[in-house]
Amino acid sequence: MEKIRVGFFGFGKTGKVVANEFLSDPLFTLTWVVRRSQVDHQKYASHMLGHEFAAGEIFAATDVNEDFFLARPVDIIVDFSDSTGVRLYKKAAQMGIPIISAISKYEPQDLELLQSYIKLTPVLYSPNITLGINVVMVAAQILQKIAPHADIEIVEEHFKGKTEISGTAQKIASVLNLEPEHVNSIRVGGIVGHHEIIFGMPYQIIRLSHQSINRAAFGQGAIFGAKFLIGKPPGMYTMETIIAEMFRQNIPVY
Amino acid sequence: MEKIRVGFFGFGKTGKVVANEFLSDPLFTLTWVVRRSQVDHQKYASHMLGHEFAAGEIFAATDVNEDFFLARPVDIIVDFSDSTGVRLYKKAAQMGIPIISAISKYEPQDLELLQSYIKLTPVLYSPNITLGINVVMVAAQILQKIAPHADIEIVEEHFKGKTEISGTAQKIASVLNLEPEHVNSIRVGGIVGHHEIIFGMPYQIIRLSHQSINRAAFGQGAIFGAKFLIGKPPGMYTMETIIAEMFRQNIPVY
Amino acid sequence: MEKIRVGFFGFGKTGKVVANEFLSDPLFTLTWVVRRSQVDHQKYASHMLGHEFAAGEIFAATDVNEDFFLARPVDIIVDFSDSTGVRLYKKAAQMGIPIISAISKYEPQDLELLQSYIKLTPVLYSPNITLGINVVMVAAQILQKIAPHADIEIVEEHFKGKTEISGTAQKIASVLNLEPEHVNSIRVGGIVGHHEIIFGMPYQIIRLSHQSINRAAFGQGAIFGAKFLIGKPPGMYTMETIIAEMFRQNIPVY
Amino acid sequence: MEKIRVGFFGFGKTGKVVANEFLSDPLFTLTWVVRRSQVDHQKYASHMLGHEFAAGEIFAATDVNEDFFLARPVDIIVDFSDSTGVRLYKKAAQMGIPIISAISKYEPQDLELLQSYIKLTPVLYSPNITLGINVVMVAAQILQKIAPHADIEIVEEHFKGKTEISGTAQKIASVLNLEPEHVNSIRVGGIVGHHEIIFGMPYQIIRLSHQSINRAAFGQGAIFGAKFLIGKPPGMYTMETIIAEMFRQNIPVY
Repeated sequence: MEKIRVGFFGFGKTGKVVANEFLSDPLFTLTWVVRRSQVDHQKYASHMLGHEFAAGEIFAATDVNEDFFLARPVDIIVDFSDSTGVRLYKKAAQMGIPIISAISKYEPQDLELLQSYIKLTPVLYSPNITLGINVVMVAAQILQKIAPHADIEIVEEHFKGKTEISGTAQKIASVLNLEPEHVNSIRVGGIVGHHEIIFGMPYQIIRLSHQSINRAAFGQGAIFGAKFLIGKPPGMYTMETIIAEMFRQNIPVY
Repeated sequence: MEKIRVGFFGFGKTGKVVANEFLSDPLFTLTWVVRRSQVDHQKYASHMLGHEFAAGEIFAATDVNEDFFLARPVDIIVDFSDSTGVRLYKKAAQMGIPIISAISKYEPQDLELLQSYIKLTPVLYSPNITLGINVVMVAAQILQKIAPHADIEIVEEHFKGKTEISGTAQKIASVLNLEPEHVNSIRVGGIVGHHEIIFGMPYQIIRLSHQSINRAAFGQGAIFGAKFLIGKPPGMYTMETIIAEMFRQNIPVY
Repeated sequence: MEKIRVGFFGFGKTGKVVANEFLSDPLFTLTWVVRRSQVDHQKYASHMLGHEFAAGEIFAATDVNEDFFLARPVDIIVDFSDSTGVRLYKKAAQMGIPIISAISKYEPQDLELLQSYIKLTPVLYSPNITLGINVVMVAAQILQKIAPHADIEIVEEHFKGKTEISGTAQKIASVLNLEPEHVNSIRVGGIVGHHEIIFGMPYQIIRLSHQSINRAAFGQGAIFGAKFLIGKPPGMYTMETIIAEMFRQNIPVY
Repeated sequence: MEKIRVGFFGFGKTGKVVANEFLSDPLFTLTWVVRRSQVDHQKYASHMLGHEFAAGEIFAATDVNEDFFLARPVDIIVDFSDSTGVRLYKKAAQMGIPIISAISKYEPQDLELLQSYIKLTPVLYSPNITLGINVVMVAAQILQKIAPHADIEIVEEHFKGKTEISGTAQKIASVLNLEPEHVNSIRVGGIVGHHEIIFGMPYQIIRLSHQSINRAAFGQGAIFGAKFLIGKPPGMYTMETIIAEMFRQNIPVY
């Protein structure tokens, strides 16, 4: 089988870990990596991440001209850079290359740009692209419908340095229609990320929790998304919609 | 609105707590209670449970003759007695009265008898009738399909005196196709009941947990089941099938 | 062996459960119960709590005159009433009868009164008298000294109706010198009481948690306190000081 | 202040992470690293771990002759190698250099050799050298003495590949005098290490838990041990004895 060729944007702390997941998965090959600056120009991402083989040649944003995507064809684009990354792959969108974006915060005009691509190509946009948190979020929405009188509280635990409330916890609160005071933020030590949704009913408690052990969970989510996205019609997809659809298809039959 | 009239079998430790939930819910009235022996004969269950009003006259099994159900009409039968309870309400089944059975362990011939009723009336049979554990069980089955390579472990915590493995944990293991060694039983202190299903994926963990605080959770489950069952066509229903159907109807749409 | 005779003040929701623990413990006999009003006057607490034997005759506050304690001698007084209970047993203090008070909130003049008794008799005063929470609190104080740079967060979970922050959580925050924003309050369903102290260090997390399953835990704490207090010299004792002393005596030797 | 000079044995997966903690702590300097083979001979551990400065020159076991410790003086030896490492630093022990050994499993003759050093120099030997797990273990021993009738269960969660029962869990079971069936092993996904000791009492549960997020926790433990050990008289020390002593010194006074 031909490997799936990945074009990657972003090579920061999370980007490196995610790129490494693609490098380590036999179904994929990392064709190139684009980072903002000239740093490590034309080195191989694979070498920088401890692999012997050469893959993932590194380019600077300024290298990405009209011909870039024709000269270095890929089957999917994965973007872990920042709000501005989307400006670089308009051409790719026009060529119909599927796009995965895991950018946390878009400037309005950049988000608009991303949304303009969805007429041309399938776009999966999910700031928290781990499989698990989306499963928990969908299950929570269903549970709220089944037990509409349950009291719901969200607890999110992260490393000490994280000052703002977790975006994922805010997202969960939003889909569950909870006021912000129902999000409880715990900041201790080196916790990578832990979200728990507690449903209290008169004599019983249900807890749905998701714990990230390592940022590589984002890579696994991107791999999951890439397998899903290739071959899909143009349009906007999110991990939530994918997971919700998988819920629908996998309701147990007795 | 007319209250839903409940005929109740069983008045042991759990039966009392469940009967009390029906006594306390404004939608229901407890018409009578049948217990095996003559104990507390013709007292009112409501008085014994600390209510001022008179409801739930207590009868002995020997009182239940052919005319019992005609003379004391009810809209639903709820059975928290034991394997033999089912033998007493054959007539009720023939009259089409819906039946809820929460018996943990049936002798084969009694289970056969219960199953013979499902041509005549709707029967909801669930040994663990709490809402929460069934939600967790259905969610776990879906999650296993979405993440087929996840490692799964079940932890069940109960009070010290419980010697055997929790039937609910065995049920969960069975629907997830897990070998018994994946059920971990913790026995300490006075824990009413706690089940946790842990899904381990390479860099993330999902935990689905259900904690019973009080046996009254069974009563809430029976109330939930009664509302569902009345008006349904004859057939066998379980909390799992009801919950699975509610999952289907409540998949979030984005 | 002679049983320890208990005089009990307070017969509200918690008081009843605690009185029942003394009734059920073979080391103790419940001699009398004083409640504020004339309700259930001269009935037996034992009968009201489902025991066959007669114990714990019920008196009203107005029955407690100068001779009350001489006429009905006890070995210890246990107070689960309210701020004003302390006014009733001045005479008992003068007679040197040990006193256990578990009152949550004292008016200043009542607390002063209690404190005046400590020259006459041993007084154990602990608003949260469960063994477990005090063990957790002492362990937390030691751990904070051992790992002074750890980040500490307190999580307290209680039933939905509890509006204020748990007094126990406030106490823990105070002994650990933590600002109130480090107390995270979760309010869901029917949780009796759950306190967790989380210590985050760079690459590891320690969690000390205490879960109350039932108010009877207070009764066990009072029994523990009563055994400790009898025979002690006059003075003020708290569960914390008792537990701290037990820590000292039980440091493991290798 | 002079930095504390560290001589390090072992440069495997855990050894590298621990060495990096010493490289990153301003109180310490990593003078050299000895590994079994000639691999990376005379490179600098610091460079291999991504630091710009040169520290921790790498030597092979065969380089360690009589003069090695004289020519390259250190203030403490830290051993994360294997059972045989102890054979290499007899001379260092004779010179009175303090030794920290975190070897999981010693062959009997190697353990004997280590024990022979304790007449010459202070030796800290702890297979699980994290601060947290030792705090939890000491607290558990005290709690067991305070609540002798509590039911105790140990739960240990580790990554899927770990086939044997955690040595730490076995150690905890041993100090608490628990039969092996009270150790419950959960194996899922990528859990680095999680130990929980559950104390069940009639109406309450205490849980003491320790979660390792990253192997660097061992490095923090070694740093803690090194600061403790330097200046101590010859003898055998363990993390448990150090922590127990710290408990004694930090009992809260009210």
